[in-house]
Amino acid sequence: MNFTERLHDVQRKNNSLLCIGLDTDSRKLPPSLARYENPVLEFNKRIIEATRDLVCAYKINLAFYEAESDLGIGTLRPTLRLIPRDILSIGDAKRGDIGNSSARYAHEMLEVLNFDSSTVNPYMGTDSVEPFLTWPEKGTFILAVTSNPGAKDFQYLPVKGKPLYEHVVRKVKKWNVRNNCGLVVGATRPKELQRVRSIVPDMPLLIPGVGSQGGDLAATIRYGCNKRGYLAVINASRSVIYASSKEDFAEAARKEALALRDEINRLREKYF
Amino acid sequence: MNFTERLHDVQRKNNSLLCIGLDTDSRKLPPSLARYENPVLEFNKRIIEATRDLVCAYKINLAFYEAESDLGIGTLRPTLRLIPRDILSIGDAKRGDIGNSSARYAHEMLEVLNFDSSTVNPYMGTDSVEPFLTWPEKGTFILAVTSNPGAKDFQYLPVKGKPLYEHVVRKVKKWNVRNNCGLVVGATRPKELQRVRSIVPDMPLLIPGVGSQGGDLAATIRYGCNKRGYLAVINASRSVIYASSKEDFAEAARKEALALRDEINRLREKYF
Repeated sequence: MNFTERLHDVQRKNNSLLCIGLDTDSRKLPPSLARYENPVLEFNKRIIEATRDLVCAYKINLAFYEAESDLGIGTLRPTLRLIPRDILSIGDAKRGDIGNSSARYAHEMLEVLNFDSSTVNPYMGTDSVEPFLTWPEKGTFILAVTSNPGAKDFQYLPVKGKPLYEHVVRKVKKWNVRNNCGLVVGATRPKELQRVRSIVPDMPLLIPGVGSQGGDLAATIRYGCNKRGYLAVINASRSVIYASSKEDFAEAARKEALALRDEINRLREKYF
Repeated sequence: MNFTERLHDVQRKNNSLLCIGLDTDSRKLPPSLARYENPVLEFNKRIIEATRDLVCAYKINLAFYEAESDLGIGTLRPTLRLIPRDILSIGDAKRGDIGNSSARYAHEMLEVLNFDSSTVNPYMGTDSVEPFLTWPEKGTFILAVTSNPGAKDFQYLPVKGKPLYEHVVRKVKKWNVRNNCGLVVGATRPKELQRVRSIVPDMPLLIPGVGSQGGDLAATIRYGCNKRGYLAVINASRSVIYASSKEDFAEAARKEALALRDEINRLREKYF
């Protein structure tokens, strides 16, 4: 089964497009976790246990783990083991390098750490992305239109009458011979989301920016899904995992995730 | 002292623009190193000892360390400690993410691992790069024109009559308020190097692609240096560290590095 089929399958089975971002920052944990040997791991464990029936995927941003250095990297693997087998993992690392170096990153992300998918930066072109596309069952989400303010600096620059990001999208469409490519499009960019979806009607789209970053959920569902209401992966990180800064953080995360999943499904029923 | 001054200083003191890339691949080590607890670290130690008087910097590509997972990350720090204090370290990680995540990467690279500088991908724009520019004495090399074939996919696309990479260069020029920005321009791109240098006459340029990738050394020196023959960081990785695959690898690396440094200096005398 290729990655696109795998994603469709889990979204259908779990009836959820929701992805929770485990951007766990050791400085933001409830004080009671300090007594655990690895507070970040304990936090992740409780978040996953409280939300695993509500999601299609968990996204792990490596920035938050590498910043903890040895301990952080040591937290990655056990966190990955806590994710149920039928839920997809996304290693959000935004890597990309010349071919022989990218091959090492791809090996790390998709073989050593064994993520189901990872994010990649397109700036260095074909040979920087190709090593990630080796395995049909493993996905690669390439940055197209990101959710942050800086997206406007380069991604929107006009190239032959079209914004740069559209050239990225069209290139990724060519790369997608194994049906394992996806794109990252921010929820803060509804018009661009609509445009991207029109170019790649059945490609997985990873859509961050709902929640803390203020993306428009209705537009995200309407324009981000394929024609049958699937293949948009709606990511929320901080708004879910830090829904409460107190002892009830896991329950609060569940409540927030449940509300978000249900609102997504309500919108799917409305539009599809 | 800001990063640009630091680089100029070490290049003058060591009379060298050469940077050696420690892209150490555990699969390519001489068999005799297998008896060491950490063969990659032993390899790096011998390469550094054999070449430390010939370089201005060592570049460490994190792809090769992360691919070894826990062991690799554990090799990074002791390798960094082996680099003499007066020689600059470049963490070649090509990171970049939304502001709060990039702040974590910057913290990791420039504070936790304590690299003197790192490489960053510009695709996500200002807020993805800014966290790296916090410390005047620490450098950030932003990808402009990379040395790999895929560079042509996006970096050369025409935007308002100029290639995309030129827009990146002009943006970096604006970011450079603390004199700690640099650019990455491949040695395989002499025309573009000349163009970039004309826009940023006194910015550090990290120039990979000499050696295994076949870049033109004479053109690299002529167009890559500032007007006084400094601030180009000429990186060679595989051609130096794998000059011999046998027991004499350190001597062979020294011989190769010495020849390269001397050829660079001969060309500097010719052109400046």
